[in-house]
Amino acid sequence: MIPNIYTIPLIQLASGDRLSLQVYRFVGAKPGKKVYIQANLHGAEIAGNAVIYQLIEYFRILEVTQLFGEVWLVPVCNPLGVNQRSHRFASGRYCVYEGKDWNRIFWDYEKTQEDLQEFAKSQVNLDIDTIKKNYLNKIINHFITLTEDIHSPSSVPFTELFRYRLQSLSIDADYLIDLHTSTDRGLDYLYYFSHRESSAQHFLFDYGILLDDYDGDAFDEAFIKPWLALENAFQKLGREIIFDVEAWTLELGSGMQMMPQSVEKGVQGVKNYLLYKGVLALNTKAIAHEMTFRSKSQITKYYAPVGGMVQARVPLGSVVKAGEKLYKILMFNKNGELPSLINICAEKDGLVYDVATNHAVNEGEYVLAVM
Amino acid sequence: MIPNIYTIPLIQLASGDRLSLQVYRFVGAKPGKKVYIQANLHGAEIAGNAVIYQLIEYFRILEVTQLFGEVWLVPVCNPLGVNQRSHRFASGRYCVYEGKDWNRIFWDYEKTQEDLQEFAKSQVNLDIDTIKKNYLNKIINHFITLTEDIHSPSSVPFTELFRYRLQSLSIDADYLIDLHTSTDRGLDYLYYFSHRESSAQHFLFDYGILLDDYDGDAFDEAFIKPWLALENAFQKLGREIIFDVEAWTLELGSGMQMMPQSVEKGVQGVKNYLLYKGVLALNTKAIAHEMTFRSKSQITKYYAPVGGMVQARVPLGSVVKAGEKLYKILMFNKNGELPSLINICAEKDGLVYDVATNHAVNEGEYVLAVM
Amino acid sequence: MIPNIYTIPLIQLASGDRLSLQVYRFVGAKPGKKVYIQANLHGAEIAGNAVIYQLIEYFRILEVTQLFGEVWLVPVCNPLGVNQRSHRFASGRYCVYEGKDWNRIFWDYEKTQEDLQEFAKSQVNLDIDTIKKNYLNKIINHFITLTEDIHSPSSVPFTELFRYRLQSLSIDADYLIDLHTSTDRGLDYLYYFSHRESSAQHFLFDYGILLDDYDGDAFDEAFIKPWLALENAFQKLGREIIFDVEAWTLELGSGMQMMPQSVEKGVQGVKNYLLYKGVLALNTKAIAHEMTFRSKSQITKYYAPVGGMVQARVPLGSVVKAGEKLYKILMFNKNGELPSLINICAEKDGLVYDVATNHAVNEGEYVLAVM
Amino acid sequence: MIPNIYTIPLIQLASGDRLSLQVYRFVGAKPGKKVYIQANLHGAEIAGNAVIYQLIEYFRILEVTQLFGEVWLVPVCNPLGVNQRSHRFASGRYCVYEGKDWNRIFWDYEKTQEDLQEFAKSQVNLDIDTIKKNYLNKIINHFITLTEDIHSPSSVPFTELFRYRLQSLSIDADYLIDLHTSTDRGLDYLYYFSHRESSAQHFLFDYGILLDDYDGDAFDEAFIKPWLALENAFQKLGREIIFDVEAWTLELGSGMQMMPQSVEKGVQGVKNYLLYKGVLALNTKAIAHEMTFRSKSQITKYYAPVGGMVQARVPLGSVVKAGEKLYKILMFNKNGELPSLINICAEKDGLVYDVATNHAVNEGEYVLAVM
Repeated sequence: MIPNIYTIPLIQLASGDRLSLQVYRFVGAKPGKKVYIQANLHGAEIAGNAVIYQLIEYFRILEVTQLFGEVWLVPVCNPLGVNQRSHRFASGRYCVYEGKDWNRIFWDYEKTQEDLQEFAKSQVNLDIDTIKKNYLNKIINHFITLTEDIHSPSSVPFTELFRYRLQSLSIDADYLIDLHTSTDRGLDYLYYFSHRESSAQHFLFDYGILLDDYDGDAFDEAFIKPWLALENAFQKLGREIIFDVEAWTLELGSGMQMMPQSVEKGVQGVKNYLLYKGVLALNTKAIAHEMTFRSKSQITKYYAPVGGMVQARVPLGSVVKAGEKLYKILMFNKNGELPSLINICAEKDGLVYDVATNHAVNEGEYVLAVM
Repeated sequence: MIPNIYTIPLIQLASGDRLSLQVYRFVGAKPGKKVYIQANLHGAEIAGNAVIYQLIEYFRILEVTQLFGEVWLVPVCNPLGVNQRSHRFASGRYCVYEGKDWNRIFWDYEKTQEDLQEFAKSQVNLDIDTIKKNYLNKIINHFITLTEDIHSPSSVPFTELFRYRLQSLSIDADYLIDLHTSTDRGLDYLYYFSHRESSAQHFLFDYGILLDDYDGDAFDEAFIKPWLALENAFQKLGREIIFDVEAWTLELGSGMQMMPQSVEKGVQGVKNYLLYKGVLALNTKAIAHEMTFRSKSQITKYYAPVGGMVQARVPLGSVVKAGEKLYKILMFNKNGELPSLINICAEKDGLVYDVATNHAVNEGEYVLAVM
Repeated sequence: MIPNIYTIPLIQLASGDRLSLQVYRFVGAKPGKKVYIQANLHGAEIAGNAVIYQLIEYFRILEVTQLFGEVWLVPVCNPLGVNQRSHRFASGRYCVYEGKDWNRIFWDYEKTQEDLQEFAKSQVNLDIDTIKKNYLNKIINHFITLTEDIHSPSSVPFTELFRYRLQSLSIDADYLIDLHTSTDRGLDYLYYFSHRESSAQHFLFDYGILLDDYDGDAFDEAFIKPWLALENAFQKLGREIIFDVEAWTLELGSGMQMMPQSVEKGVQGVKNYLLYKGVLALNTKAIAHEMTFRSKSQITKYYAPVGGMVQARVPLGSVVKAGEKLYKILMFNKNGELPSLINICAEKDGLVYDVATNHAVNEGEYVLAVM
Repeated sequence: MIPNIYTIPLIQLASGDRLSLQVYRFVGAKPGKKVYIQANLHGAEIAGNAVIYQLIEYFRILEVTQLFGEVWLVPVCNPLGVNQRSHRFASGRYCVYEGKDWNRIFWDYEKTQEDLQEFAKSQVNLDIDTIKKNYLNKIINHFITLTEDIHSPSSVPFTELFRYRLQSLSIDADYLIDLHTSTDRGLDYLYYFSHRESSAQHFLFDYGILLDDYDGDAFDEAFIKPWLALENAFQKLGREIIFDVEAWTLELGSGMQMMPQSVEKGVQGVKNYLLYKGVLALNTKAIAHEMTFRSKSQITKYYAPVGGMVQARVPLGSVVKAGEKLYKILMFNKNGELPSLINICAEKDGLVYDVATNHAVNEGEYVLAVM
């Protein structure tokens, strides 16, 4: 199968140079779902690019009859973030002009929508496909009004231009997969939304974190929240609907690298998920992998209570009990005293799933996270 | 009058060095209001430090009988932001660890409060001073629970530590004044909240912008929003109360400098306001200055529609009509074409009150703002 | 006259996007000198782009017979530097990967050359044009060996790639003009090299600074030093030769902006210089402007002796006497003391030709410069 | 043994806060050599702090009779660098105001000295201790003249203030040890200077790199170069002298962390060296460890020939042969093409001793180094 390749201008720089997005679109012989997969929204989180590369290689040898619907692949989806450096480090987590996290900028239809319950009422007796079509039209009709601001003389800040470009590629997808990693060093896991546990298990990961607590305007959230809101609106009307619309953020290990085992997990997970969803038609059957589910609200992140240097930190992946030692800080001072070691212990039981790359910490800097 | 001076440790750095806050507190002979004034929350916005310096010099020669209540002055209130540099520029607008604007991090009691209407009902027949005392207690009781997280083993990210330090100095103030400037080049004006127009006029500024549209978690907002919410709650119960609690953000000209005329405006404005509020007891009377009021939601910010170099921009302070030329962009390219000039015109009438320092713009970078 | 326009790939970014150089080359009807003009080597120094734009517009309406030789124009010659931002400021003075000033990276043939005196001896009886041709060949022959490293598997750091790209465009020029501005706020002046005073006067500037003290590996230095060295070598052999090879750095006012009067000065200066050199054939005659010459070694730069905020600084362009007040620092502390004002006075007489944009200074930060 | 602890103010920040150096000085019962050890000159290179902490703990339990001479220990010796962050990364390799590597700023007496050969002649018949004393006096007499500039109204840029502070602590040392690590991920090794091979072997490292090729103004260089120059000057006069003055840079593994095995190596190495030098008087004997010596000029650093993502890189510590594959780059494009994989092979045989932390590379970014 040969993909269509689209190069989409993203930004003209002060120097006149332009940065672009490039989309690889594989279209199956028969119609079906639209799958949208992007990587590297945060500058340091590069592993998903290798996943996309392997998926491209994989789709290229597939027959067109083996794909139902279409798959859109967007590697290095944030050139400004990807190319950003501070010394040699990939510091592109936020837009430097605006001081905003690149994954907290997206347009969330749910926030502007005022007539949700009314709309739900108007659709309550329709079949689910018609409702889905009607609601998607409604979302898109609002979304395209964003171009008015973009094309006005006052235009919009870059983050709003950027979100428009990415969301115009993905807003009508059925399944959206955003490939991230830890900024620092992390395990492989995924973020999912309510009522999608059984789909989640087809990514073959060991851990899943339910986004019960929103950061606000993240790419996955902004995509799925309107649909979750409509599901809730129907529930209030006594009708249980779960749309076949899903958003996933896959966390594929550590930042600033493409760890082979994490990349492999990402590739296998996506393939198995597509098989499960009937996007891939192969001779094998999709597998459901038993996984541990946690909620985002249960996570504990540890920040340095003093300034200094972290040492003797428990390894990534450790299971700790409340009261057990998590790490020490070698604390210096400028008061004429000897340096000293401070012990920090776990507040509660859990799995250490993410740890800081940088072991030098000012007071209040991130050290590790426990799920 | 001699101030009490308090040095409050703010953060221990990785090197063991510590940065601190320092408070200058002038206490009058007779009880009265608490006024809290800080400067330089954003790194580049230094003019307020000169205002505070002149206020300190002024209070020092005042008699203790000329002050009612107390005035707290906190210059350079954000050392991490103030000392931040990128090349020689004061880039400290946001916390680099967390990618968060230093003025969008504060604890907003209104957001956590669940029993507002109930509380209002319980107080509706009390006198305003009692209500104020009761509500302040309620706010403070919640606020101090933040220390539990700070002192837990997992502690909190630095922005939460920082907000706690600043808000613990200011939360029980009657009048809060946050001295800012433009990041770039700006006129002098102030931000105010609903129902405070007549107080606003005593700062002697020409322009005031009503914060009818919240950025979220700004220092002034976080202080006043619970009080505005309670005012609304009483209104629903049929009682009109405006608390004598006020929050102000004064914008004193351009960033990275202390323009003498802006500093002077700040000093005169604060003195006249304190006189108006009866905090200063002098032989003169406070003056109300006629001012133009705008709403934040009416402001138009202009962002570059292409990358290039801004030239022929209308001067700061210009009054423009819709359709008039605002600026040009000298646009380069890497397509083998000649460079070209693009004209950008005003979308609507207004006053150019803020313009970018940097005339090189990537697409989507800020150029100017019109009120 | 229509220019040839060349787009030259400069760097492939991690995202796969490419940044390029673009050269506008005007070729006269008759042969003559090669003039190379570039702008914006330091990210904040944008004024030269407007100069180049106006020169392009000017050459376009010239007849091909009015130009002798050729003029190469390279605006926005350092895309990585031009597009670099920290918050909204143009922080691109140095390569962030390598911590190197973009104008201290160039290949200086004089540093590698071992047989200079020998070569001079071999040429001492030849005519100046032949010597020039022979020496240029010698330089170019060495220069092109740099490509071996570039094309080796280990390749070279980006600054070496970049210098190769710019120097390969300019190394065979007769006259090289590098358009800079202050990083901060500055007067208009130029840097020149020994024995070029009379040429200097044709740029119509009021001030010129002789580069008697090298920073090392600057663009202008790297171009001219081999020729100055050869001139010296001939002098030792008793032959006085001044090659008609010249390098200029024009400082066109303040950073992050294109001040119309500085741009105009740059345009008029370059045109008059080209007329003087016979590159332009017009009906007017070139003018020599009386100018004040200083040496780089005589310049005094003032750095803050304490941390704080600069105020009451003498205006840019002031003539000061030794002992006169230059500026004050409003100095804060965290020792429980009142803030205070520190006076800093001039060490010696001179002209304040450059002042910092940012008035907040850590100890040892730049404040102003006196020539 | 209890150390003297000195807290030395280093810099007053714009906010009025001060950062300091703190020296731990252990003085033996009997006179002897002065050893100076510092750590963390580059912000990311924290491992040496743990070495110094362990040495402090070790000296504290030593008897005062077990130490000859004195040992000065300066952890976190560059607070501005140590505390610098970009996002969560320790980006403090260079001074952001000046764009200068913190380890290329030191005062090198050899560069200013004009009368070296003359001085050597005047001392040629004296005994080595007298010469050493005389030369040290000469160096110090020049060094202290730097304070004139520091205390002048124009003062000096911060890097010159900083170098003065560190060098005033260390300039009269006999043995100077600067504890570094890789910016990225590295093996343990040391840098040494000519004629110090046998001392080098007492640090118990496997690899040593001879600094035959100077970066210029590094801390170790600036300390030892005047002594090496004097040794050479005597050699010209026919007298062979090797002063017992030594400078070492120990590279203790990877950046942004304190790897226990690298810290342990550093501690054991320094102790054994001090034993060898007779600074420590213990019952054991110093060990000479066989080590591989390389020259700095033989090192090959690999930079990315295209932009993209590094994968399949040979592990740190690999021995490679010329022509063997070193790494691949997954290269994206914005030309409508498929992504591709590029292979990069070794230019020559060697040991991969340092590899980049960040696997995303713009063209010309660092990938790995081979000795």
